[in-house]
Amino acid sequence: MRALVLESTAETPKIIEKETLSPSPGFVKIRLHAAGWNRRDYWITQGKYPLITLPVTMGSDGCGFVEDCPDNPDVIGQEVVICPSMNWGENDLHQSSQFHILGMPSDGTFAEEIIVPIENIFPKPPHLTVEQSAALPLAGLTAWRAVISRAKLKEKENILITGIGGSTAIFALQFAVATGANVFVTSSSTEKIEKAKLLGANGGVLYTDQAWEKKIKAICPLGFDVIIDSAGGAGFGHLVKLLNMGGRLVFFGGTQGRWPSILPQYLFFKQVSLLASTMGSPREFEEMLHFISTNKIIPVIDSIFPLDDYPLALERTTHKDRFGKVVLQID
Amino acid sequence: MRALVLESTAETPKIIEKETLSPSPGFVKIRLHAAGWNRRDYWITQGKYPLITLPVTMGSDGCGFVEDCPDNPDVIGQEVVICPSMNWGENDLHQSSQFHILGMPSDGTFAEEIIVPIENIFPKPPHLTVEQSAALPLAGLTAWRAVISRAKLKEKENILITGIGGSTAIFALQFAVATGANVFVTSSSTEKIEKAKLLGANGGVLYTDQAWEKKIKAICPLGFDVIIDSAGGAGFGHLVKLLNMGGRLVFFGGTQGRWPSILPQYLFFKQVSLLASTMGSPREFEEMLHFISTNKIIPVIDSIFPLDDYPLALERTTHKDRFGKVVLQID
Repeated sequence: MRALVLESTAETPKIIEKETLSPSPGFVKIRLHAAGWNRRDYWITQGKYPLITLPVTMGSDGCGFVEDCPDNPDVIGQEVVICPSMNWGENDLHQSSQFHILGMPSDGTFAEEIIVPIENIFPKPPHLTVEQSAALPLAGLTAWRAVISRAKLKEKENILITGIGGSTAIFALQFAVATGANVFVTSSSTEKIEKAKLLGANGGVLYTDQAWEKKIKAICPLGFDVIIDSAGGAGFGHLVKLLNMGGRLVFFGGTQGRWPSILPQYLFFKQVSLLASTMGSPREFEEMLHFISTNKIIPVIDSIFPLDDYPLALERTTHKDRFGKVVLQID
Repeated sequence: MRALVLESTAETPKIIEKETLSPSPGFVKIRLHAAGWNRRDYWITQGKYPLITLPVTMGSDGCGFVEDCPDNPDVIGQEVVICPSMNWGENDLHQSSQFHILGMPSDGTFAEEIIVPIENIFPKPPHLTVEQSAALPLAGLTAWRAVISRAKLKEKENILITGIGGSTAIFALQFAVATGANVFVTSSSTEKIEKAKLLGANGGVLYTDQAWEKKIKAICPLGFDVIIDSAGGAGFGHLVKLLNMGGRLVFFGGTQGRWPSILPQYLFFKQVSLLASTMGSPREFEEMLHFISTNKIIPVIDSIFPLDDYPLALERTTHKDRFGKVVLQID
């Protein structure tokens, strides 16, 4: 079977022929239809990810059908999506020490076949194509845990999502809109703000604008009950001041680096919560799929490439104009 | 009736004779037995508190008996403690915009009589003296919300409480010990650490020691599930690194000023929560009193002074050796 393998961070990944494997009890073999790229895949190719273990078949997100399942032959043929959280463990508050993300160190989804634990597969949402389903897992789960499990966003609350365009931010937007919240965004691009509005956002501002804080207050004068941020950096100091009484700020990234020095007095009177989040459990994955099916949410796909065009897919993943997921068609 | 009144932050407070008042419907008149000093009272005398409105009868904490209650004469004669959270409102997550703390702008407990809303009085815990009961309200409520409502401390978890000696930190210690947690403290004084151990702490380190972080890891190698901090400042950057996976750090003060610049990457993988807290609702006050009665917790009193010796009480409130509450005997 063919697989896109990274053998060294000094080289680009390449497609190689690998031996086909049979699943042990507790595992299933999936024949993949489509796989989604994440920024994580790019960071791994650059050697800028913790604990890089090579060679590895890349990819965290995948959709396909069950080809073999020693425990339960009834599921053979079923179309499934794969939850990329491996060995999360029993505690919903945090992952176990055995936790890892599919696609390093274990072989991932950029391949014709994959073997995963049976508890990591879930039925494909019926209203989605295989490409749309392959766009869901990592970014959708990260956004679900951030917006729903951690921030506990409620109907009619005001939410600000920074850096719209990235897939996690877009899923956060879609979940927030479906929850009935008033959704605002920041972006580096007017076009992305317009696309966010088409998805249901009330409005947005350019974070590259010196006066962005003033402008976001102008379009949302009642302040924010929830803020979702993956940038960190100097802007974080402004974000915490935009929180309402009892506000929750969830952060799951820090592409802009360190938070500035913050005076706690700004925060404690307002009873705010600064909540770290990363990935999510298979239980949260199942909740998310149910919500997506109920609300007929369709993941936003930026572009689709055949497996053989993986260099174009990798390039597009880091392109500044990307809005949504880059997907590989495999079979 | 006699009351300790602050007329100007340029002068010290003084005892004056004030007119006795009758409660309107919805209010009760309490004849006070004892009142507790808080650091807040000191900051008000120094003009270092937000929105100072003078003249005012000082004091947030009090215990006495009901002398008049137009709505319910049955409670007359009952010994009560007063919840100092005024107009908290209906939302447990945060106080309303009408919220204030008893003892500025409304007249407080350093007086022979006080009139408060009927919803702010609660029966005195039977196992406590009036002085012990007067030591409870503000610091106990702040600690309760921090440790129980916000951090949701559980049995067998490891908790670190910074700056033991202050009354809120001591209540946090007592609530944590009664919950069955493993309790560790920091302090500027070996004597205070020893006193904390007598109250049930497992151990502690001097935060003045350059190697305090290493030393706290040595006595609690499994790290901390909960940290309670009212200092902020540079030390906060070390505290966040001491948190375990899923750890909760609650902060309700910032005597050491700004937090340092923090890299969010240290936090989000660990799924930690940084939770601001201040005061608490009358509902939390009632829960706290129930817990104190059930667990026979006795507030730690540093010293007791007659009302006329208020200058000594004020001086003691800010003394570096103080461990626990300074209480005024009124009647």
